[in-house]
Amino acid sequence: MAPSREGAGVRTAGTEQRMRRSVVRGLLARAASPEVLSFAVGLPATDLLPRRALAAAGDRLLAESGVPLQYGTPCRPLKALVAGLMKERGVVCGEEQVFLCNGAQQALRLLSWLLLAPGGAVMHEEIVYDGFQTVISDFSPEVLAVPTRAGEGIDVEAVAARLAAGARPAFLYVVSDGHNPLGASLSVEKRAALVELARAYAVPIVEDDACGLLGLDGPAPLPLRALDPDWVLYVGSFSKILAPGLRVGWLVVPEHLVPALSALKHADDFDAASFAQHLVADFLGRGEMPAHLARLREEYARRRDAVLDACARHLPEGARWTRPPAGLYVWVELPGVDTMELLEVALEEEKVAFCPGVAFAAPGRRDGWNAMRLSFGGLPPERIEEAIARLGRVTKKHFSRQDHP
Amino acid sequence: MAPSREGAGVRTAGTEQRMRRSVVRGLLARAASPEVLSFAVGLPATDLLPRRALAAAGDRLLAESGVPLQYGTPCRPLKALVAGLMKERGVVCGEEQVFLCNGAQQALRLLSWLLLAPGGAVMHEEIVYDGFQTVISDFSPEVLAVPTRAGEGIDVEAVAARLAAGARPAFLYVVSDGHNPLGASLSVEKRAALVELARAYAVPIVEDDACGLLGLDGPAPLPLRALDPDWVLYVGSFSKILAPGLRVGWLVVPEHLVPALSALKHADDFDAASFAQHLVADFLGRGEMPAHLARLREEYARRRDAVLDACARHLPEGARWTRPPAGLYVWVELPGVDTMELLEVALEEEKVAFCPGVAFAAPGRRDGWNAMRLSFGGLPPERIEEAIARLGRVTKKHFSRQDHP
Repeated sequence: MAPSREGAGVRTAGTEQRMRRSVVRGLLARAASPEVLSFAVGLPATDLLPRRALAAAGDRLLAESGVPLQYGTPCRPLKALVAGLMKERGVVCGEEQVFLCNGAQQALRLLSWLLLAPGGAVMHEEIVYDGFQTVISDFSPEVLAVPTRAGEGIDVEAVAARLAAGARPAFLYVVSDGHNPLGASLSVEKRAALVELARAYAVPIVEDDACGLLGLDGPAPLPLRALDPDWVLYVGSFSKILAPGLRVGWLVVPEHLVPALSALKHADDFDAASFAQHLVADFLGRGEMPAHLARLREEYARRRDAVLDACARHLPEGARWTRPPAGLYVWVELPGVDTMELLEVALEEEKVAFCPGVAFAAPGRRDGWNAMRLSFGGLPPERIEEAIARLGRVTKKHFSRQDHP
Repeated sequence: MAPSREGAGVRTAGTEQRMRRSVVRGLLARAASPEVLSFAVGLPATDLLPRRALAAAGDRLLAESGVPLQYGTPCRPLKALVAGLMKERGVVCGEEQVFLCNGAQQALRLLSWLLLAPGGAVMHEEIVYDGFQTVISDFSPEVLAVPTRAGEGIDVEAVAARLAAGARPAFLYVVSDGHNPLGASLSVEKRAALVELARAYAVPIVEDDACGLLGLDGPAPLPLRALDPDWVLYVGSFSKILAPGLRVGWLVVPEHLVPALSALKHADDFDAASFAQHLVADFLGRGEMPAHLARLREEYARRRDAVLDACARHLPEGARWTRPPAGLYVWVELPGVDTMELLEVALEEEKVAFCPGVAFAAPGRRDGWNAMRLSFGGLPPERIEEAIARLGRVTKKHFSRQDHP
């Protein structure tokens, strides 16, 4: 039997974190069963994916020649169209600052690869997107975890204090709008302060804006990148606003970083145009995005409201939840309830699933152990109501006595 | 201006190699100009990409639902169909041994990531696919370069001697059929001997079989993976046999390695099904591959023969070239001619391009400086004739006196 490097896949995560992830993965695998009503995974709505428009795009692209299927440099028309889309977000940039990659995940990986020298540090919140933790764990950075709050996001004063005390991370990771998993959007004051700190201490900010175009109460405030073109490295994705299966995301970065990113992508999986890049370019080029985004925002606002209404009706006394102004995630806290245990019985008895909050805790921490992320994008309002009714039932049955002894 | 880690993209390549690559890249960029007849890049024939079949596949997939555009686990039907395709190659495997990724490049990266511990070594030929060198350079391995010959491929006795002397690389990288760039296929004796060595010394072989299904004189011999399921990690790709823009490749590995590969791919760009995986599955599932492969083999054999005929007619005395039994590459040696210099004048005076052999030399070496790789897949026979006539002309004009003083 051929050997492999011991534990290569997870070699930098601590044992406890590794075990926790493995348990969460097992639970989420059970959540994928068709009879389960699941808030567990951050899916966009399948019925809102523009399948007819994308099939037509494929037909058009391939009617004339095979060129969109051939090797080629990254799709330049798409870069220009992304620069146009960024304008909708209040960001002024040129196509030469746009770098295309396989979804936001690869964007985060390439940036970490570029910025993180061995032994370097990353600053991020105590509760942070698990996919980002997976990305950086390969680089074994020192993690500088700063406090965060469910309704408000990152504690900017804590960031300032750490920097003032001498911390110099390779970068600070921030989600300005529709935080995954907290569902928070930052105040404009926090945004301005973060950008000031980045400049003052020469610490770049990696801004993950996967949901920034999904403002649910009108447009989201300006992202950090709109406030500073040099110190903010912006990560965008078509996964939530078009289709995850296309695997297309982008970066907006200072132009001088593009050749290095291209060399890294080349070593990763070739820095070439994918057929999917051409599909996205065709879709954007026909001007279909504004109407599509409007439809998404409307429907996701409806689903968010269904979550909030149902939480108020069905969750036990003491429960708290966020009201996300953007994106696809509601963070629910159930004081005293271990949500890993809850997920076990919720799956077993009520066929309902969520992602336990501890899955997002920074290494060595247990933040979120009594919380859960509800990803509401994939469930229509009537099923949301039913799912949260089940969740309330199983929580009350097993945990309410412990809460209020 | 935001900082980046010094020279991150190429940080492990030596200065000389870095400069050489940069020069080659500049030349190849000029080769992409439309008036240039180019053998420089390993393109499959654009007119043989099955664009109508793939457009129809997209229409079928998206007629019913958006599921093929949604997040999902790696496409299981495709794994089963790849296992079926491997049978055509003489390899018996199950879908649970198939791992899907973004082309062979990502497959090579994930394997290197899995197998190469810090300070580890890789054994490969003195002349080897440049994309593979790009992949491993990120891991800064010790490179154990073994001799290779244009018509024959890797020197197996040299491999045996190095292993007997105590070398224990993390893996040995081998191309059994249609070597890129040498165009060589290994004898069956060499194949058997390599597998024996892998077993005897517990050194896995990474077998890059991007062109193994493109046998040009009948089917290629059995790949190493057919001789050993445990010590040979097989890399396959749809880039040359279907379409590069789909970015779909695969590994055949012992099943116990799949979870670790999945964790690594997750950190890289998400281990999820891409829409392109569904497209390929639809194409294979309709049984279109055998006829498609037959068409490719016939046309590429015609193009190869056009190269060989034209070389005999137009290249100066002393020139030597390989006759590839598989794949898309002919290796031409022009004794005494520095092919980097030749490429400069060939582009300038005759608008013809190739990839200089030195681009494939192992770190610190200059092997191939008087050779070139002709990638003939992208040019129809009549343009091949014209391109090699130009090449012969410019070589004779500038270099023949130096050859025969």
